[in-house]
Amino acid sequence: MMAPVAINLGIKLHVLAEADDVSATTAATYTVGDYTDYDTLAAFAATVDVVTFDHEHVPTQHLHRLQDAGVKLAPGPDALVYAQDKLAMRRKMAELGLPQPDWRAVTTLDELLTAGDEIGWPVVLKTPRGGYDGKGVWVLDSAEDARAANVWFNGDHAALLVEAKVDFRSELSAQIARSTTGETKTYPVVETIQTDGVADIVKAPAPELDDTTANAARQAAETIANGVGVTGMLAVELFHTPDIAPGFMINELAMRPHNTGHWTQDGAVTSQFEQHLRAVLGLPLGATDPIVKYTVMKNYLGADNHDLYGAFGLAMAKYPAAKIHAYGKSVRPGRKIGHVNVLATDGDLDAALAAAIDAAEIIRHGTTDY
Amino acid sequence: MMAPVAINLGIKLHVLAEADDVSATTAATYTVGDYTDYDTLAAFAATVDVVTFDHEHVPTQHLHRLQDAGVKLAPGPDALVYAQDKLAMRRKMAELGLPQPDWRAVTTLDELLTAGDEIGWPVVLKTPRGGYDGKGVWVLDSAEDARAANVWFNGDHAALLVEAKVDFRSELSAQIARSTTGETKTYPVVETIQTDGVADIVKAPAPELDDTTANAARQAAETIANGVGVTGMLAVELFHTPDIAPGFMINELAMRPHNTGHWTQDGAVTSQFEQHLRAVLGLPLGATDPIVKYTVMKNYLGADNHDLYGAFGLAMAKYPAAKIHAYGKSVRPGRKIGHVNVLATDGDLDAALAAAIDAAEIIRHGTTDY
Repeated sequence: MMAPVAINLGIKLHVLAEADDVSATTAATYTVGDYTDYDTLAAFAATVDVVTFDHEHVPTQHLHRLQDAGVKLAPGPDALVYAQDKLAMRRKMAELGLPQPDWRAVTTLDELLTAGDEIGWPVVLKTPRGGYDGKGVWVLDSAEDARAANVWFNGDHAALLVEAKVDFRSELSAQIARSTTGETKTYPVVETIQTDGVADIVKAPAPELDDTTANAARQAAETIANGVGVTGMLAVELFHTPDIAPGFMINELAMRPHNTGHWTQDGAVTSQFEQHLRAVLGLPLGATDPIVKYTVMKNYLGADNHDLYGAFGLAMAKYPAAKIHAYGKSVRPGRKIGHVNVLATDGDLDAALAAAIDAAEIIRHGTTDY
Repeated sequence: MMAPVAINLGIKLHVLAEADDVSATTAATYTVGDYTDYDTLAAFAATVDVVTFDHEHVPTQHLHRLQDAGVKLAPGPDALVYAQDKLAMRRKMAELGLPQPDWRAVTTLDELLTAGDEIGWPVVLKTPRGGYDGKGVWVLDSAEDARAANVWFNGDHAALLVEAKVDFRSELSAQIARSTTGETKTYPVVETIQTDGVADIVKAPAPELDDTTANAARQAAETIANGVGVTGMLAVELFHTPDIAPGFMINELAMRPHNTGHWTQDGAVTSQFEQHLRAVLGLPLGATDPIVKYTVMKNYLGADNHDLYGAFGLAMAKYPAAKIHAYGKSVRPGRKIGHVNVLATDGDLDAALAAAIDAAEIIRHGTTDY
């Protein structure tokens, strides 16, 4: 999704891809290689002016070594570690004085049981690294659940993160861009609806969020962006807790264009993909204003229909104003393969939401009669 | 500019390019070849599902031969000839009963002089084929001018087109998409400001056009699209003649995404490039509504500055809401190398116009102090 904006600004992309058949290879020059191998990373880095990321899984020690060798990384490892390591992130948020769930680092079952008792059950147990879309996350309702989770204390992890299971009203995302020049621009805070741990629907801006809380969340995103020294896009995923000041708690960080920002492709003056490119290249940042009152994004995940292109026609016929985005991925059940944006040009959020959901389901199932 | 929307919809483009260094090669798979050579065209056509065009200069006889060989052409030669041959176009517009300047086909100086006297001087002399951006067009103020133009009756042309020099208030463009299925959708009529025969500024929708005339112009575009059987985007360039019913006259046709439609990339629900792809592939057409009240497009032509990328930063810093589009072309004086779109999100057309012009000039000259 970075490729279209790069073409438009005359910026050349070179992708280090895991395999020939991944999505990014359909849109840009690429080299196939293993992102966990230092020599592969170093050879790739020599071909470009600046290295940025579309996931957080490149080993931190390799990033430090690249940086020491003079490679421009955006974000750099000192920032990226807070998106890679949830324990490091919790410590940093505490240091920055930002609101977050009660949490502990635990390395033994006894510590987990004590943490659960102190925090109050249920708690959420997380692997600090490698989790994604709900993977590496377990909800423990009780000490019994915790004992059953003992399998995770097998030496793979120096410590696990335990945190309170927050009773939130909704989930939010506050995105910000920070340039290599230090310039920052926040996007409107959006509401995200997760299904099975995967972002599924985004309403932009968050329709039931008061301005005071929204502004505080944008300010928190700015505190984090400057506090960790990120360059590029930062998504701060939040729990909306209207009864606990300041009305939100920090859940997780992502340092890249993020699923919760796909609405900006059609609904904001500057999309998160263009903004990320501007930020990592040190270009001035673009305006983040929404173009219309509300935009809705709905993901479509792989299901029974494999003829996406045929289904696009059905969805387009029913919704001439729907903006369909395809990732060029093969269809696998549950895999994110695209999304639909609908602009509520008339301000009717419910109609836009219904249209986005229906269009996505038509694509998933290959029929309007799903 | 087709490439970004193709990536987004998972549609693969293959370009027949004149040379390795033309703009389209930076964004899509390409083959270098001569579009005037039938064998080159046939070999290229065998690699794709459907052939479309970004200019009108592929010889009509080759297109007929390809069509006879079973190649899907969109638009086909029976439609495209009206964008290729201005005399054929004038005859067709007359047949369709559409308003146009008084015109004659002339093959001798005597015929030209008679036509000038009948139509009334000044007249405009045009080569029916091969003209572009003001090339192949001469304004003849008098019989003396016509005699001086005698050089053009050298056997190169079966006939030339002579038409009245219309005293118009402004120039307009009415765009329409027509799908291979016959579905049509018109865009709002825009005002275009030409400089030295080149479209320079577009105001979308045309701010000083009354609804009755605008609707009649959209209806005329539909009559043409169906009358010539175009598939893809059609731009109908018009003279705005408020004192002569129905308020406009047809100037020229283009059967492709057109400079006067670049505003749709940022200002309409469906851009002309996505719409063209949908139309030539037989996908349902997208909504053509403007997203905001006014959008302004300003071209930037090559000038003294060759560091476009550096200049982008200056323009972006001054205008965070400006949408800069670059064509990946090398800078040559007077060459179209990109454009800037500015959305008047607050409805202030004059401010958007001033911003677009200033941003384009900053890019041309590489300084804010030009």
